[in-house]
Amino acid sequence: MKPITYEPIGTIYTPFQDTHDMPIQAKGGKGVKGTIAIKPSFAEGLMDIGGFSHIILIYHLHRSKKYSLTVKPFLDDAVHGVFATRAPRRPNPIGISVVRLRKVEGRVLHIEDVDMVNGTPLLDIKPYIPDIDAFQTKRTGWLSGKKTKGFRKAKSDRRFQS
Amino acid sequence: MKPITYEPIGTIYTPFQDTHDMPIQAKGGKGVKGTIAIKPSFAEGLMDIGGFSHIILIYHLHRSKKYSLTVKPFLDDAVHGVFATRAPRRPNPIGISVVRLRKVEGRVLHIEDVDMVNGTPLLDIKPYIPDIDAFQTKRTGWLSGKKTKGFRKAKSDRRFQS
Repeated sequence: MKPITYEPIGTIYTPFQDTHDMPIQAKGGKGVKGTIAIKPSFAEGLMDIGGFSHIILIYHLHRSKKYSLTVKPFLDDAVHGVFATRAPRRPNPIGISVVRLRKVEGRVLHIEDVDMVNGTPLLDIKPYIPDIDAFQTKRTGWLSGKKTKGFRKAKSDRRFQS
Repeated sequence: MKPITYEPIGTIYTPFQDTHDMPIQAKGGKGVKGTIAIKPSFAEGLMDIGGFSHIILIYHLHRSKKYSLTVKPFLDDAVHGVFATRAPRRPNPIGISVVRLRKVEGRVLHIEDVDMVNGTPLLDIKPYIPDIDAFQTKRTGWLSGKKTKGFRKAKSDRRFQS
């Protein structure tokens, strides 16, 4: 299999200048505002995006320089396979977040509920559609019960810093 | 901004040999079975994934060879910006699907509710966690009302084939 190459379509700007002491998920960044600047050459692709209250951002975790296949994620002290966690140091460091879209001004998107570090390269935007994106699941593995609520409060520490 | 390069962590196998006449979203592929073969060098990252009933697959839409910034998506006859749609021909052709995880056998995952073409290169797996991934939104733009239900029934046609 050949390597796959992507070109960022824009940049995400947030108040988070460093990868520690920031929300670990979008629901933990509730109310925190950010902006996205789309490159002029991709701006036409934004047509009608203002109709959606929530959008899915797919981005490159550019501060994640190396990875481990097993990790202790922020919400646990036990080791798990990286694909069973949302930890940022992944073989392909791709992040996804659902954020609120507040306003579109030309090729700038004003967003809220951000959980990514300032300057994050954006790869794709998709509209969030509850009918296809929202699931109620039966089992959430090691993240059972109240642990998942921790995503709303927990802040990152230095464990995944280079 | 420099190009970003990823190496697939494995391959997704499904009954869909071509990109037309297949489900356009995972909820349209309900009950359809597939498998994922993770490369041996990444297999350790699967530890504990079997505890999750649903996983998020992030994959490369390898049959999408070119893109348009404006598209007529499967569920509409009007033109929209590609970032306001889930159409496959995107500047960075990245797909995301939530599928059910039925069984883990070594480095092979047995999944259900698949909506990707056979042989799709897999970039990442994340556990689906309703507390952070499920949102009820206010506005779904051009996809208002009953149109979103179409995702469960609609099949792809040839509009995005090369």
